Amino acid sequence: MADKYKPMQAADVAQWDAEVGVLVVGFGGAGAAAAIEACDQGCSVMLVEAASAAGGSTALSSAELYLGGGTRIQKALGYNDTVDAMYDYLMASNGPQACPEKTRAYCEQSADHFDWLEAQGVPFKESEYPHRAMMALTDDCLLYTGSEKAWPYVQLAAPAPRGHNLKVEGDNGGPLFMSVMEQAVRVRGIEVRFEARVLRLIVDSSEDDPVICGAVIRQDMREQMIRARQGVVLCCGGFVMNQAMLKQYAPELMKATVPIGNPNDNGAGIQMGLSVGAAVINMHEGFVSLPYYPPATLTYGILVNAQGQRFINEDAYHGRVGAAVLKQSGGPVYLVMRVEDYDGYETQSYLDAPIAGTGETLEELAAELDLPEGQLERCLETYNRFASEGRDPLFHKSADWLEPIVGPVVAIDCTPGRGAFFPYFTLGGLDTTVDGQVKNAAGTVIRGLFAAGRTACGVPRRGDGYASGTSVADASWSGRLAGRSVAVNERRSSSE
Amino acid sequence: MADKYKPMQAADVAQWDAEVGVLVVGFGGAGAAAAIEACDQGCSVMLVEAASAAGGSTALSSAELYLGGGTRIQKALGYNDTVDAMYDYLMASNGPQACPEKTRAYCEQSADHFDWLEAQGVPFKESEYPHRAMMALTDDCLLYTGSEKAWPYVQLAAPAPRGHNLKVEGDNGGPLFMSVMEQAVRVRGIEVRFEARVLRLIVDSSEDDPVICGAVIRQDMREQMIRARQGVVLCCGGFVMNQAMLKQYAPELMKATVPIGNPNDNGAGIQMGLSVGAAVINMHEGFVSLPYYPPATLTYGILVNAQGQRFINEDAYHGRVGAAVLKQSGGPVYLVMRVEDYDGYETQSYLDAPIAGTGETLEELAAELDLPEGQLERCLETYNRFASEGRDPLFHKSADWLEPIVGPVVAIDCTPGRGAFFPYFTLGGLDTTVDGQVKNAAGTVIRGLFAAGRTACGVPRRGDGYASGTSVADASWSGRLAGRSVAVNERRSSSE
Repeated sequence: MADKYKPMQAADVAQWDAEVGVLVVGFGGAGAAAAIEACDQGCSVMLVEAASAAGGSTALSSAELYLGGGTRIQKALGYNDTVDAMYDYLMASNGPQACPEKTRAYCEQSADHFDWLEAQGVPFKESEYPHRAMMALTDDCLLYTGSEKAWPYVQLAAPAPRGHNLKVEGDNGGPLFMSVMEQAVRVRGIEVRFEARVLRLIVDSSEDDPVICGAVIRQDMREQMIRARQGVVLCCGGFVMNQAMLKQYAPELMKATVPIGNPNDNGAGIQMGLSVGAAVINMHEGFVSLPYYPPATLTYGILVNAQGQRFINEDAYHGRVGAAVLKQSGGPVYLVMRVEDYDGYETQSYLDAPIAGTGETLEELAAELDLPEGQLERCLETYNRFASEGRDPLFHKSADWLEPIVGPVVAIDCTPGRGAFFPYFTLGGLDTTVDGQVKNAAGTVIRGLFAAGRTACGVPRRGDGYASGTSVADASWSGRLAGRSVAVNERRSSSE
Repeated sequence: MADKYKPMQAADVAQWDAEVGVLVVGFGGAGAAAAIEACDQGCSVMLVEAASAAGGSTALSSAELYLGGGTRIQKALGYNDTVDAMYDYLMASNGPQACPEKTRAYCEQSADHFDWLEAQGVPFKESEYPHRAMMALTDDCLLYTGSEKAWPYVQLAAPAPRGHNLKVEGDNGGPLFMSVMEQAVRVRGIEVRFEARVLRLIVDSSEDDPVICGAVIRQDMREQMIRARQGVVLCCGGFVMNQAMLKQYAPELMKATVPIGNPNDNGAGIQMGLSVGAAVINMHEGFVSLPYYPPATLTYGILVNAQGQRFINEDAYHGRVGAAVLKQSGGPVYLVMRVEDYDGYETQSYLDAPIAGTGETLEELAAELDLPEGQLERCLETYNRFASEGRDPLFHKSADWLEPIVGPVVAIDCTPGRGAFFPYFTLGGLDTTVDGQVKNAAGTVIRGLFAAGRTACGVPRRGDGYASGTSVADASWSGRLAGRSVAVNERRSSSE
């Protein structure tokens, strides 16, 4: 990385090519929400996007939205979720990295945010998807997308389904979500520029504290100076597509195999923040998944590490399980199950893990696996003995998923690097206030600079505590806050 | 944290109170080495220290030095250590965070660095301390201070003892090391100012790329402007004493119980770097220890987690074991051993862990511990069966430390937060080049700014791969590199 994000000084701008109130960088879920809110507050807004179309990584996702505390759908379906229960769950699952202020605000505003999304036109059906799945492939709405019902969280917070799936068949939530958001941008007449890449921020250093007052963009093979009187909102994704930044900040995350995002999740927004003194936090953390369900029946299986020991309750969320797999000390990781529970794996699974062994009996299977002698048998003897009593005193897997594992049996190879699909993305970013102002290392806000979505470090902060839908919900919610925040920012005098 | 480290502009300095070639901040091991080297290169040097005396955290340590690749002592005692073996070990133990360039240079220059330390007057005896211990309490020199002989490293790099203990009885290496270093500073006539706290860097922004050209210090209740023509070297420790920074950057590390360092390990150097655009890396990482030996006989015991499962080879270095303890999923952690191996624990141990249970038989002990029924018995049955064959196929503990564990037995409670001593310190810091120049996020060096010791992110980068002596050796070595580097830095014109 050369110093290519070094900011330009406003004094060096010979001529401004355009002037707006607010410049929003990135037309994914966060940028769309920021632009809409800033516009609704009366600002003139320009939205620039490096790609040829709107979408960002939000459009690539399932666009489940992790919302609760009593959304319209939760209430309609009889779930009595509360702000406190949602807060307790997110605080517990984000562990020591949790930001109490952001989490509190997110939970308190969650039901309202749902209403706002509906008001934009995002469609939801008043129905539930009651299965254990990574996402609903029907048009049903409400489902569990985290570890709410799994130990230890089930003991720490009252569980409720908080994943809100869009009313669309198949894994098509992301494109639909972004088409609705794009339409909401369009009807407001917000100026949108595609194939416009932001190169550098522009800083006015004439005052004691520098102010971000615009950006240099490249469009039509020409650099253009965009003046933003109220500020710039960086909504340009995380850094999972930037190998150098991954190596610098999150090398352990690279044990996972497939970066998830769009090519512009290259860390440019984070780098531009850093170039003007912003602080970055939680940069080592990321979401990692072992997507072993569907079919949900694989949850009846057990995961064992190189010692032939279990290490997690297998009914936890796939991201929690993926993070646990990566924390094992090396050697193989197998998912062992009855052949009848394996049914559906080859047609329904996203995992792509190869078969490691099979057997009419446990002993036959054990002979095919690379585990210390007798360990798998002992592990299963213990598991089965307790499972037949409907309990798992080791890892507290729910009785719903406990059944003795007896032959014929099969093991699939979940060892990182041996074929299993381990998608990942980053959870670190610019340190921001709850309302989206970017902070420097001392905690002071950088005037005129805002960030949302995965350019900022938001509500979700730990791979082992992640829940599906927190990224799109946090991105759209934090985008709105940043949009409102920049809208009330001091209007700086326009250039002549 | 207010924005108290915000740099001062050189243009705002009404009058310089002093002018030197090089300003070194912090008189611990790194700062002393930097000052000595810069002086030996012909620079005028001022060394400022916030405390009333020299020492820093180096003086609080045992000052073991992790050096190898064929030091004088290694050779004299017949150890055929090589640069490659040392490099392989450090690269493996620092895992994905390892910096190949720094590690290579450290290993290549390691034997020379030992000679340099001897030349300064640091005394070493040509002898070996052959026991498993955290430090030599005799005046013997060479000992194993990492996990070189433990799995998996023993398979990845040829082991050699690389801890070099000073020739002094008791745990007195740190004070002796720093008294020698202070003497080496004194004989050179280097100007030293104690009770002089650096408040802010001073930046000359008159050129295109700002240059660090001095610092504001507070001494004698007065702010003084110190001009440094060639640069400022930050050697002011890590941030383990700064609760706000720990919470911001390394919240998980706070599961450990006792921060190790001196009160000025408050992150000021890192904050000053950040204030001028420096990048920080590896900020979440730290050293953590479960100091369960001496007595070495506790190594015959086994550590079990809340599932009654082992999770590490207990012959690994205490820091590796401590890191593994903190990674367990919660619940108790016990160290279980024969009563005869427990002998000496109460008189020799630093651990302070309470007894969790005792028993004439394993069953009696198990009844006293909070573990799932039958798990401890099963774990010990497996362990003992293999131990009696001299092997540990689960975690590959060396046969030297394998003995069946039979009654009478005792368990000590190593659960974090229940009394056991878990010291910790930080391993993240300013991103620097091998020769100590501070880099910004884009990798460009910040002119006139250097860092060494724990203010920088150096060679040791992972708690679970740490070896005693890497901090003091890295601090003194990186201090020297930074001192040589600032010495050849462009001499900027003096103020009038």
